[in-house]
Parts: sequence; structure tokens; C-alpha cells
Amino acid sequence: MPDSTESAEERLIARYLRPLATHPGALGLVDDAALLTPPPGCDLVLKTDGVIAGVHFFLDDPAEGIGRKALRMNLSDLAAKGAKPLGFLLALALPAGTEEAWIAAFACGLGDDAERYGCPLLGGDTDHTPGPISVSIAAFGAVPHGRMVRRSTAKIGDRVLVTGTIGDAALGVKLRGDASLSARWRLDRTMARHLEERYLLPLPRNALAEAVLHHAAAAMDISDGLVGDLGKLCRASAVAAEIDIARVPLSDAARAAIAAEPALIETALTGGDDYEIVLTLAPEKLSTFRAAADAAGVLVTEIGHVQAGEGACFMHNGDALTFARPSYSHF
Amino acid sequence: MPDSTESAEERLIARYLRPLATHPGALGLVDDAALLTPPPGCDLVLKTDGVIAGVHFFLDDPAEGIGRKALRMNLSDLAAKGAKPLGFLLALALPAGTEEAWIAAFACGLGDDAERYGCPLLGGDTDHTPGPISVSIAAFGAVPHGRMVRRSTAKIGDRVLVTGTIGDAALGVKLRGDASLSARWRLDRTMARHLEERYLLPLPRNALAEAVLHHAAAAMDISDGLVGDLGKLCRASAVAAEIDIARVPLSDAARAAIAAEPALIETALTGGDDYEIVLTLAPEKLSTFRAAADAAGVLVTEIGHVQAGEGACFMHNGDALTFARPSYSHF
Repeated sequence: MPDSTESAEERLIARYLRPLATHPGALGLVDDAALLTPPPGCDLVLKTDGVIAGVHFFLDDPAEGIGRKALRMNLSDLAAKGAKPLGFLLALALPAGTEEAWIAAFACGLGDDAERYGCPLLGGDTDHTPGPISVSIAAFGAVPHGRMVRRSTAKIGDRVLVTGTIGDAALGVKLRGDASLSARWRLDRTMARHLEERYLLPLPRNALAEAVLHHAAAAMDISDGLVGDLGKLCRASAVAAEIDIARVPLSDAARAAIAAEPALIETALTGGDDYEIVLTLAPEKLSTFRAAADAAGVLVTEIGHVQAGEGACFMHNGDALTFARPSYSHF
Repeated sequence: MPDSTESAEERLIARYLRPLATHPGALGLVDDAALLTPPPGCDLVLKTDGVIAGVHFFLDDPAEGIGRKALRMNLSDLAAKGAKPLGFLLALALPAGTEEAWIAAFACGLGDDAERYGCPLLGGDTDHTPGPISVSIAAFGAVPHGRMVRRSTAKIGDRVLVTGTIGDAALGVKLRGDASLSARWRLDRTMARHLEERYLLPLPRNALAEAVLHHAAAAMDISDGLVGDLGKLCRASAVAAEIDIARVPLSDAARAAIAAEPALIETALTGGDDYEIVLTLAPEKLSTFRAAADAAGVLVTEIGHVQAGEGACFMHNGDALTFARPSYSHF
């Protein structure tokens, strides 16, 4: 029987969020704050990122996936920094009248991923909002003291690698908005579903975090497109990178779409939501890193190298490509 | 000259938020994540809370105060847990067309408080939103290992104390919505301004955090009203509390308003946004705690005691008061 002095917020938390708070430091979500003790000799790595309905997802996207996506965006950053997930805080703003079924599905997806990635809920804040549904997550990970992999430490002569395939989510969101593109891009059902799924559900590369920690010179999460994000890494490291577009890994679906409409290569390289890792490493570390990636089951592809200069240069048949909008921005 | 590959978000961050990122672990806000190393022997205390325009503040409230309020709400929780602030993450959602002057003033207030309370910006996330301005903060503090002051550890026989005065912000927000109440409540200008200011700007009791850490049996931040929040503390501790309403500390302004309209005592006791601390302590610790509070310049008032049973009972002239809506909820 619900305690009559309990608020609607308390009931929502008790029913849907408390089961996710498996970390002892969450104190069952009954205190003002949570407790976290980083493993001895470790630094805490902190990241906050979130999603807003109508900006980062469509209102009719499955709620179960929205919880996953919000957490995975942050997990992807932890992976790129070489950090092991420890837990997260959740700030949830819901319009009045949000259906309980939505909340239940959201919490179900979020809880499943929290368990899958070993990143339990530590605490949160729930509010009503006159605006759209908004999910903000602050995630915490651990790295050995002083060892977080930075953006700013790429060295001239490093090789540039990326995980997974590039551009699927950016193509997927176009397809999500206009299903007729599937025919224009000559995609079969499997290909179309692949692109849409990569938009709905990032695949953060946490399995690779330890290999990144031990081998990468510099790394970052690709969330605003490879072109813009590699540009940021180059700026932070005061180096240039030369990338061979022909080597950028594409899924069969992305390859088919770009074959049908070559201008889509720009979408693939500059669109957001990849949640892959771009990293640089010394050439002598390449084979060990590849072996570690194989062992982790993560595809890694060498796409270019770091050199003296400024900015990332993307070469296509010997010419440097320029982009109308190099970096995706939700802002 | 702005770098043409910089996004609007990057420029906003560089101009207004980077100056707040004085913590070395913020890495100048140029990496994916931030770094935090809790002091040796300490646990990290984590809290997330935020404000949404139209829910927690009025759009025409001064922007400078909104940054302060969002941070202070979280600082208040750290204080109640006996924790020393270490830093915070900021998730900011702004409608398109938010004026740069608003952002500048917001950042100015936030930065000033970050410095005042020794709680620098560690990192953040900035998005556009089709909804109202939303500011979500995750704040971090440190306590000696295993020493965070809980809600759940009140003991039968403890005294119950509160800091500051109760109900000012709840009366202030009524006044903010209807200026004519000032005359009805027979407030002079100073009194009216006092109540409004207490709504606009919480005064978190971080100066008392160390005394709370060393003396309190249980403590929590009062953000949803004394009645509801003390009820939560009692539930978490499986005890009852008996409070003498006549002893609840009121400002001159609140006292005047309640004298003019006695039903306002319920607003004062159950309204939100006090950001004071309610705590319990063993009777033998009372005098040392009072001395520490005096030294910290924080008013503390004994209002009742902890006893066996369930829930918090508020006595008025020998009768237990009941409340239509015991706990304030933004949800």
C-alpha cells in the first residue's frame, strides 16, 4: 500500500528507479546524496551528456532505447578516455502526463544497460517540465592515477585509427525522418534497419577501454562527426592529421547509400552520433593494439596519420575535401 | 578572430564557461571528460539537482541569480552531508535565441559562487532545447571515508535542530507571484525584500558542514519543506520526531505575514526552497555543536526531539497539526 505521505515523485522513484540503484553508494536512493569511493590509486573520470526530445530523439522512438542511448553516450566518452565505468547520476525532466508505460520502458532499457556495462545508478533528480522530455546523465569512471587518455597528446608520426564504422547513425537519422530515402539509396530492408538501429542505439566501445588506456597516445569519442571531432583532437594536440577517405570504415549499408548518392559521404563524415572512438598511437604499438582489439571483438581501422601542421585534412583521390559544415552540433 | 571551424557552442563555452573551469581536472574544458581525485582517505559525495524556467524560477528572475541558485541547491546538500565541495558538472539547455546577455549574467553569478564556495566547474554539456531554459548541476564533495552524515541514523533521544529560518522562500515565491500580498501581510519594504531574496537566492550552510560532520547523528537538506523532509528523515531512520511549532525559527518578515494570515504557517512549514539543514544530535553534543555553529556564524535552533514511533509530529498549543500537502513537490 502506498504511504499517503509519499509524493508522486517518490512513488515513481521507488517503483522504476530504485531497482537500478544496485550500487551500495546509492543508499537505495533514500538519502540526499550518493557515495562513491574510487578504487585506490585511481582518478575519477567525469562526464555529463544528455538527450532532449525533439533534439536528440523523436518522441515516438522507443522509450526503452532512449534510456539506453542517454547512458551509452556517456559510456562512450568513458571508453575513449580509457576509463572503467563506476556509476551514474540521472536528472530526468518529464512533462505532466508522461505515461507510466513510457517511464517503465525507459527505466527498463536504462537498467538493462546499467547492468550490461557495469555502471549502476547512484542517484538522481526528477522534475516535471513544461518542455519536452529531457534526460541528463553524469557518468563516472576510473583510470589509474594520471593515466586518463587525453585529446591533447597526439604526436607527429602517430597513426590515426577509428573503431567500428562511421556515418551509420547520421544516415540513419535521415532515413528515420524520410523513409522514402531507402528506395533512393537502393537499400534492402536489412541495410535500412542497420542504419536506423545505429541511430537509435549507439554501441559504446567500453570493451576496448583497457586497450585504449594502454596503447593510445590520444583519443576521443566521435559524437559530432569524424571531421569535426578529429579537428578538435588536432587543435588540442597542436598537430595536423591526414586522413584517406577511402580507408574510413563504412558499413555495407552506408557504402550502398553513398554509391547511390555520392554527396552522402559528407553526411557520413560530418554527421553526429557515431559514438565510435578516434585515437592516435605510435606505429610500434599498432600490432599489439590490433591484437587487443581483436580480443575485445571491436573492429579498428587505420585511416591516416598525424603530421606537423594544423587541422585534419581528408583526402579523396589525392584532393583535400572541404566540408560545408565540418562538425555536427545540437547547439 | 574566431576559428571558423569552431561551433557556436564552442564559442559560448570558451567565452563564458571556460573562465569558471579553474580546477586543473577540468582540463580547460577541451577534453571529453574531467578528472577528479578525492583527497586521500575520503569518499566522494555526489548530488544532482537543477532548475527549469517556469518551474523553479520565473523567466524574468535575474539570470545572475539563477546560476547561483542552481549551484547553491546542490551545495546545500553537500553541507547537510558534512561534505566539503570539490567541484561540479553543468548541463545547460538553452532555447534558440537565448540572449547572450542572459548567458553572460548567468555565468557571472555561477562563477562568483563557484569561487565563493570553493566549488569550481569541472565540465559540462550545452544543448539547444525547444523547451524552457534548464540548468542541471551534478556537484561533488568529500567526506572522510565512511563518515557521510545520513538521513537514516537519527537515534531516539536525539534533539532536532534546524539552521537559519524556515518558510521565507515559500512566502517569497507567493509574494513574487502577487505583489499585492505585501500589503495584506502588512510587510514593510525590507520585510518584503527579505522574503523575495530568500526565494531568489538560497544561503547554503556550507560553513556549518564540518560541525555537522563531527556532531550530527543524522541530517538532511530542507528543500521540500520542513514537514515533508523531516518526515523523510524519520522514515529513513525508523523513528518519530516531535516538533514544537512555536520553536521553529521564523524571520521577522515571516512572523509578520503569519500574524496577518495565520494559515500561512502551513506555507512556511511545508513550502519548498528553504535550503536549510535539519539535523539530529545526541543531547550531550548540543553545547559543542552550538559553539561550532556560533563560530561558523550560522544560527541553529532546537525545535524538538526524536522518539520511538513513526513520522514527524508538529505540535501547536498542545495539538498535533495536520497538513493538506505535507511536502512540496516540483514533480
